[in-house]
Amino acid sequence: MPAYRAPVKDTQFVLDAIVGLDKYSNLLGFADATPDVVKAILEEGGKFCEQVLAPINLSGDIEGCSRHDDGSVTTPTGFKAAYAQFMEAGWGTLIADAEYGGQGLPYVIGTAMSEYLSSANMAFSMYPGLNEGAQAAIEAVGSEAQKKQFLPNMVAGRWTGTMNLTEPQCGTDLGLIRTRAEPRPDGTYAITGTKIFISAGEHDLNDNIIHLVLAKTAGAPDNVKGISLFIVPKFLVNADGSLGARNGVKCGSIEHKMGIHANATCVMNYDGATGYMLGEENKGLRAMFIMMNAARLGVGVQGLAQGEVAYQNAVTYARDRTQGRALTGPADPAAKADPIIVHPDVRRMLMDGRAFNEGARALVLWGALQVDLAHKAATPEERQLADDLISLLTPVIKGYCTDKGYEIATASQQVYGGHGYIREWGMEQFVRDARIAQIYEGTNGIQAMDLVGRKLAMNGGRGMRAYLALVSEALADAKADERLAVVAGPLEKSLGELQSATMWLMTNAMAKPDNAGAGATAYLHLMGIVALGHMWLLMAKASHAALDSGASDTDFYTNKLITARYFAERYTPDAGALRSKIEAGSESLMAMAAQAF
Amino acid sequence: MPAYRAPVKDTQFVLDAIVGLDKYSNLLGFADATPDVVKAILEEGGKFCEQVLAPINLSGDIEGCSRHDDGSVTTPTGFKAAYAQFMEAGWGTLIADAEYGGQGLPYVIGTAMSEYLSSANMAFSMYPGLNEGAQAAIEAVGSEAQKKQFLPNMVAGRWTGTMNLTEPQCGTDLGLIRTRAEPRPDGTYAITGTKIFISAGEHDLNDNIIHLVLAKTAGAPDNVKGISLFIVPKFLVNADGSLGARNGVKCGSIEHKMGIHANATCVMNYDGATGYMLGEENKGLRAMFIMMNAARLGVGVQGLAQGEVAYQNAVTYARDRTQGRALTGPADPAAKADPIIVHPDVRRMLMDGRAFNEGARALVLWGALQVDLAHKAATPEERQLADDLISLLTPVIKGYCTDKGYEIATASQQVYGGHGYIREWGMEQFVRDARIAQIYEGTNGIQAMDLVGRKLAMNGGRGMRAYLALVSEALADAKADERLAVVAGPLEKSLGELQSATMWLMTNAMAKPDNAGAGATAYLHLMGIVALGHMWLLMAKASHAALDSGASDTDFYTNKLITARYFAERYTPDAGALRSKIEAGSESLMAMAAQAF
Repeated sequence: MPAYRAPVKDTQFVLDAIVGLDKYSNLLGFADATPDVVKAILEEGGKFCEQVLAPINLSGDIEGCSRHDDGSVTTPTGFKAAYAQFMEAGWGTLIADAEYGGQGLPYVIGTAMSEYLSSANMAFSMYPGLNEGAQAAIEAVGSEAQKKQFLPNMVAGRWTGTMNLTEPQCGTDLGLIRTRAEPRPDGTYAITGTKIFISAGEHDLNDNIIHLVLAKTAGAPDNVKGISLFIVPKFLVNADGSLGARNGVKCGSIEHKMGIHANATCVMNYDGATGYMLGEENKGLRAMFIMMNAARLGVGVQGLAQGEVAYQNAVTYARDRTQGRALTGPADPAAKADPIIVHPDVRRMLMDGRAFNEGARALVLWGALQVDLAHKAATPEERQLADDLISLLTPVIKGYCTDKGYEIATASQQVYGGHGYIREWGMEQFVRDARIAQIYEGTNGIQAMDLVGRKLAMNGGRGMRAYLALVSEALADAKADERLAVVAGPLEKSLGELQSATMWLMTNAMAKPDNAGAGATAYLHLMGIVALGHMWLLMAKASHAALDSGASDTDFYTNKLITARYFAERYTPDAGALRSKIEAGSESLMAMAAQAF
Repeated sequence: MPAYRAPVKDTQFVLDAIVGLDKYSNLLGFADATPDVVKAILEEGGKFCEQVLAPINLSGDIEGCSRHDDGSVTTPTGFKAAYAQFMEAGWGTLIADAEYGGQGLPYVIGTAMSEYLSSANMAFSMYPGLNEGAQAAIEAVGSEAQKKQFLPNMVAGRWTGTMNLTEPQCGTDLGLIRTRAEPRPDGTYAITGTKIFISAGEHDLNDNIIHLVLAKTAGAPDNVKGISLFIVPKFLVNADGSLGARNGVKCGSIEHKMGIHANATCVMNYDGATGYMLGEENKGLRAMFIMMNAARLGVGVQGLAQGEVAYQNAVTYARDRTQGRALTGPADPAAKADPIIVHPDVRRMLMDGRAFNEGARALVLWGALQVDLAHKAATPEERQLADDLISLLTPVIKGYCTDKGYEIATASQQVYGGHGYIREWGMEQFVRDARIAQIYEGTNGIQAMDLVGRKLAMNGGRGMRAYLALVSEALADAKADERLAVVAGPLEKSLGELQSATMWLMTNAMAKPDNAGAGATAYLHLMGIVALGHMWLLMAKASHAALDSGASDTDFYTNKLITARYFAERYTPDAGALRSKIEAGSESLMAMAAQAF
């Protein structure tokens, strides 16, 4: 059975070297995140993930969820008990507002923990994960009464939340929504329609489910400007927070999916269910995007998380499995064969994983810090900068980290040879689970279009200019230490490719927007390489500094430097190829008639 | 439910433009492969795949195989009937020797058909596929009596064959085999041991199963030089071919796998089973490699086949599904949204599939022709050349076509958005099925080592020199027509990268073999790009020629030219990146201690 070990030391290294938690101790929430508190959270949270969640990951996949005739859903054996422990320990309250019972810690700490949760048991982690997104939307646009009515129980985990966007005819294009909201005299709405792909839509983990549902009121514009957002609880909630009558919403079926079997993906039928408008009429999409943006970062973390757990198990297997001999002669002459970690091609798969995982961990925690700073930084300029940066990087984190996470999970499975294809070894589950992250919360193609078609040009390109300046600054700074050249040189080159590609798009995509669409995915990947390269440069610098100052754990920092170099040698060369693909434009892509395919 | 349409016209185009079937009509078997015969086989064979096999692909995946307490195995509903039709129509006899009831057609025709079989139902196609491999081994090294005893029923499909190599402790490294063969006075052997991952090891499709089993005789060298090959029938076979007693071999369990659920992957327990030595003692590996090489080409075809069927369904979905608007303005203003095939990023995924599938089809059929020529060409020089080429290209076809086939299946699934993740749509099955092809018959890492560590240097590099000359010749030839520059230019550049990388390996891998291992996979991919580019150049040339000579189906040839250009623009840029990765060497890869991962 696969195992999981929370990479606490690596997380702490990133929190020190990249995030620099201590620099922000004057900000709300950060003051509480003292080194001791952070250490305790990571260690205890990591233990919970290792000991409670990881052991029910494979069994949960095999057993899956079951729906009963009355529409109720049972989660796999052990999930209800694990959820009770999760709730009890308060793991769902880390970043929630103290006003509603949360611990008010920085988002970056919550993100660190969410990686562990998702590595240990991605399907489980989605129940609290969606809950967190729903809380964010209610907190952002809900009335005071709504916040008081719903948030305390949601924060405590006694209730969970969901996002209801998709319908059979409408996924990306939410203008096509058909779910109707009819006003009732008492100010509530009757919600009627069918939603599909509703993660955690029904389950037996706790007492109530708070659905956030996109629907159209009568007479609303028949496009994205006519969508409102509603709170539709499974059980109606009295003013005092106690539960009332069962509402007219029911799980019609659960999907048979490629993976995340232990998370119930539901078809939800709304039949005149009582709903409460959340935020303003026809502004539902805005509120939903508050949820969505946080969710997209969270999905990027899932990509990393599956890459990490798959990598860890591949390492164990590569050390244990003996087969063949090292190319340089027997490594263990007494045995009949050497462990396969002696083979360079096996190491290639492991180092690919390591270089991605550690780089991506730095990137998502850096991104999470920007979320904190966008809300809490001392000056409006700092808040603006952080908001610009995270708006720009969100599609990169979501798209690049999930594409690569899937690749790393696949490569880690490959290390197992034939055993990787067998369910009991658990590796193929990581691949199947990782796959959804490229699809949901906006497919990676949508992320790429968001980046190229929207984020690049937003505010006259202010965010992109700030980001390019940030990376250039790190490069300029690195000139002072020639030991960094092995990492900085390739980053500088890939940054040049990114700048050329950006210029090419500016010149060629205005008049011909298909050129933007044709190069969007390649551009997102190019930017992902630069973003991870930037993180590796900062980590290399911090590692040299630690070694120079006589840090005791020299192996740890030396291995960081080796991995930084590996990233530079093995990931950055793709930047040039991606630029070529972007600059090939859309001509051959759009030339064929649709019927000719 | 997904559908399949055999790409008969595309196959015929390759048989004309690349293979040039008519040029070989003087050779054994080719004389019978007249244009009419080939057309009839492709069309009727295609129909069989479309109408009989494709409809039971998804249901077979869902139902899977079941093993009963007595060790017998039931295949999914419809498989037995489909197999009977397969046998009846003689689809398993195409390339078999006429002496044993086969049709004696060229291997290249069998390969064309095997693509269709594997696209329509990969799990089904493996039953006859393994049978074909087993026949090849018996034909190559069996005694006359063995051939007469086993081949007629195997060719007819009344019996199927298997390959038994792997054991729990031994996959790639066959020197570790523990299965024992003890001689008996009557000249037979008692075979005892456990084999795992035996595809089609037990089933209910027909009367008997002929296991080919690797085992060690007493006193044999305890390494790969001490392995012998044995025929171990499920039911003993009398001299007249009639069935005798049940032999001491039994299916102990079937594996729970990521995919190919409808093919029984068995643990086979041999308990003093009667075996007949096949070929010479201690030369079992040689005989097994006869099977294996053909099997590796066949696995390459599986990569293409899953890419093709996934692509076809993605095209259908992209034409039907409406969502959003074209970047250039509504394509269908009367509707509420445009079909998603208007979006460049969706087209990118489709064109990636098209460019790979059509290029890979040309490559595998070209490769199959080399197999024919290696046996049947008129002169020893021609036979030698063909053998050199296919020895060199076999790992490339296996490794590159399966890696890319998995990518294309994944990208085609991505076109479906959330629906791609749902079992009923069938797309996730293509991904899961495609995945095994990267693993079995030697993982793709092993293919890469075979290419770099063995094939490149074989006979003093004669094969590689011949191959480089072949591509260079096509490029020189293309200079005469400047319309080909758009395809030839990028191919020439990628050939240059391949030559530089080859030179680098020659210079750097002799003294330091880890450099070969570290670059092996990148080198295999680089060679794959050149190989497909070569095919696209030849197809572009043939398309221009057809258009110049006034061929009626101008769209067909124009679309080939568009796709050729797309390949040049979007696949070949990776060549430079791959060369950089190769030239990065093994230093950072091998630097970390095994325990530090």
